[in-house]
Amino acid sequence: MRVAILAHELFPNEAKTALGVLRYADDEIVAVLDRDNPNRRVNEFVPDVQDAPIVTGMDDLEDDEVDALLIGVAPIGGGFEESWREDVRKALERGHDVISGLHYFLSEDDEFDRLAEANDCELRDVRKPPEDLSVSDGIASDVDAEVILTVGTDCGVGKMTATMELVADAREAGYDAAVVPTGQTGIMIEGWGMPVDRVVSDFTAGAVEEMILEAGTDHDYLFVEGQGSIVHPAYSGVTCGILHGAMADRLVLCHDAGREAIHGYESFSLPPLSRYIDLYEDLAAPVSESRVVAGALNTSGLEDSVAREAVNEYEAAIDAPATDVIRFGTDGVLETLLESGSDR
Amino acid sequence: MRVAILAHELFPNEAKTALGVLRYADDEIVAVLDRDNPNRRVNEFVPDVQDAPIVTGMDDLEDDEVDALLIGVAPIGGGFEESWREDVRKALERGHDVISGLHYFLSEDDEFDRLAEANDCELRDVRKPPEDLSVSDGIASDVDAEVILTVGTDCGVGKMTATMELVADAREAGYDAAVVPTGQTGIMIEGWGMPVDRVVSDFTAGAVEEMILEAGTDHDYLFVEGQGSIVHPAYSGVTCGILHGAMADRLVLCHDAGREAIHGYESFSLPPLSRYIDLYEDLAAPVSESRVVAGALNTSGLEDSVAREAVNEYEAAIDAPATDVIRFGTDGVLETLLESGSDR
Repeated sequence: MRVAILAHELFPNEAKTALGVLRYADDEIVAVLDRDNPNRRVNEFVPDVQDAPIVTGMDDLEDDEVDALLIGVAPIGGGFEESWREDVRKALERGHDVISGLHYFLSEDDEFDRLAEANDCELRDVRKPPEDLSVSDGIASDVDAEVILTVGTDCGVGKMTATMELVADAREAGYDAAVVPTGQTGIMIEGWGMPVDRVVSDFTAGAVEEMILEAGTDHDYLFVEGQGSIVHPAYSGVTCGILHGAMADRLVLCHDAGREAIHGYESFSLPPLSRYIDLYEDLAAPVSESRVVAGALNTSGLEDSVAREAVNEYEAAIDAPATDVIRFGTDGVLETLLESGSDR
Repeated sequence: MRVAILAHELFPNEAKTALGVLRYADDEIVAVLDRDNPNRRVNEFVPDVQDAPIVTGMDDLEDDEVDALLIGVAPIGGGFEESWREDVRKALERGHDVISGLHYFLSEDDEFDRLAEANDCELRDVRKPPEDLSVSDGIASDVDAEVILTVGTDCGVGKMTATMELVADAREAGYDAAVVPTGQTGIMIEGWGMPVDRVVSDFTAGAVEEMILEAGTDHDYLFVEGQGSIVHPAYSGVTCGILHGAMADRLVLCHDAGREAIHGYESFSLPPLSRYIDLYEDLAAPVSESRVVAGALNTSGLEDSVAREAVNEYEAAIDAPATDVIRFGTDGVLETLLESGSDR
C-alpha cells in the first residue's frame, strides 16, 4: 500500500505514530505532510527509517501515487485538529482510504462519513474497538505458540519498539514470529490488532486473549506489545488485564535509562527494578507461570560512551540478558527468548 | 422514593440486584413483580430484608403508589427480556422513572425513549458510564477522608455486602461514612456511583478517583466497593485499576468460605490467603500504602456449628480481625477500620 502520512507541525519529535510507521511498516511511504518543513526529506531528521519527501499537503501529491492517508500524530486528548480537515477531505475526494488512531473517530464525522460513502473509500479508526468483545475465558495458554510479552517500568519506555525489533530479527533468523498489536501505532504497522486501552474495562484480558487465539495457530512465537506499567497510577488496569489475558510464557522488562519517576506523575518514584520483576511474576503466577527472562533498555538519552555500561548495569539489576534494541540490536536477548521456548 | 422491583421468574435466588436493593436501599419498596409468585410476600422467601407484597405486574399496582420501576435482575449477558416490555411500557405510560443496570440500555430502545419523552419521566441506565471520564491524576489520597476498599479472593465473595454493612454500622455508631459504589447494584442502592467494569479500560482508575474526590470532601470515611479479584483471569484489570485509583488507606479482604477455585474458571486455584495479602499490598505500595487490616468471610454456605470456627481460622490465616458481616455483624472489624484511621 502507498501511504501518505499527515504530521503537520509535529514532525518528527511529536509524531510517534508517524515514526513507528516509517520505521516498521511494510507500506511504501510516498510522503510526509508537514507544512512546517516543505522540500525537506524524512532522513534529514531521522536517518535510520524509510526515507520520503516532506510536502505541505495533499495538493502536492498526484491522485494516482497514493492509496491511503494516515494520521501520524496523536495529540494529548486524541482530538482532531481542524487544520487537518482540508487534507483529509482531499484524500477522500480522491478515493483514498484514511487511517486514524485518534480518540476522535473520523467515521463519526458527518462530512468525512459522507465523502467516504460517495467516493467508495474507507475510514479506518484503528482505536475503535470491535463491538463483539467479551470477557476472557482464561485459555490463551492453550495455543501452541510461545507467547512473549513486553512489560514496562512506565509508559513510553520502548515496549512497542522492543516488540517490533525482536519480531523483525526473529523472522530474519528464520523463526515464524508475529506481533500481537495492542496500541494504535502497532495496529497501523501490522494492519490488525486491538486498541486494548479503549475497550470496556471488563474486556481488557478478553481482547488480548482473542488476539492470541487468532494468531496462535498461525505462528510459532507471538510477541505481545505491552502497555503501561503495573505500578502506573492511571494505566495499571490495562497492564494487568494484558498480563493475565496474554498468559505469557516469558516477559521482557523494558525500561528507559535514567528514568526515576512515572512520566507525568512525578510524585510517584519508580520502585527498584528487582521489585518490578517480583510484581510482574507474582501477579501473573496464579494465572500463568510468566518469567522475566530478558530486558530492553532505552538508552537514547545517553552518550555512546556510557550506553554500554548502562546496559551492563541493567543486566545485573534484572539478572537477565538485556540490550538496547535500537543501539545494540537484539543479539543475546533474542536467543534467550527463543531458546527458553524449546525447554517447554 | 417508592419503588417497584421487576424480578419475574428469578426471585429470590437469581435476583441479586433486587435482594441488594431490598436489603440496603432507603427507598420504600412497594412491590416485587414476579409472575411466578403472586400473592406471596418477600419475607416468606428472605426474612431479613425489607418486606413487600409480590404481584404479577404493573397492572396490580395503582398509578399513585409508585414513583419508579427498577429492573432487579441481571441475566448473564445483560440482555433485555421481551417478556418484561409490557411492565416497562406501563410504568413509563404512568410517568414512572425506570431504573436499569442491564448492559442493554433502555434509553437506546426506541419505544421506551419515546414513551419517556412523552410522559416526562426518566430512563436511568446505571451501567452507562458518563461521557466525560478521563485518566486518573493519581490524587485520590489528597482527600481528607479515610479511604477503605474491599478487595476479594474472587468475584461474588461478598465485597458489596461487606461494604454496605460496614457503612451502615459505622453510621449507626455516629461516624460520617459513605459508600463509593462501583457496580450496578451499589449504584441503585446509593443513587450515585459509576459502573467501573463498563468504562473505557484506560479510565478505570480515573473513574474511581473522580468519585473519591467528589465524595471525599463530604464524609470522614469512604468505603469503596471493590470488584473482581487481582488474580482473576478475566477481571483483574478492573480490580487493579480500582486498587490504584482508590489509593486506599486500608483494605478489607473478602472471601467465600470453602471456595478453592475461581468461580467459572475452575482450573485456576485460589492462591493461599497470605499470598493475596502480599499481592494486594505489594501492588498498591508504589502508588499508596494500603494495608489489609481486616477480613470479611462469607459463611452462608456453612452450618451454624462451624461458621464461628471458620471465621477464627480465617482471622488466623490473614492475621487480622475478621467476621461474617451478615451472620455475626461488624463488631471488632469495624473498630479496627475506624480506629486505625485516627492514627494517621
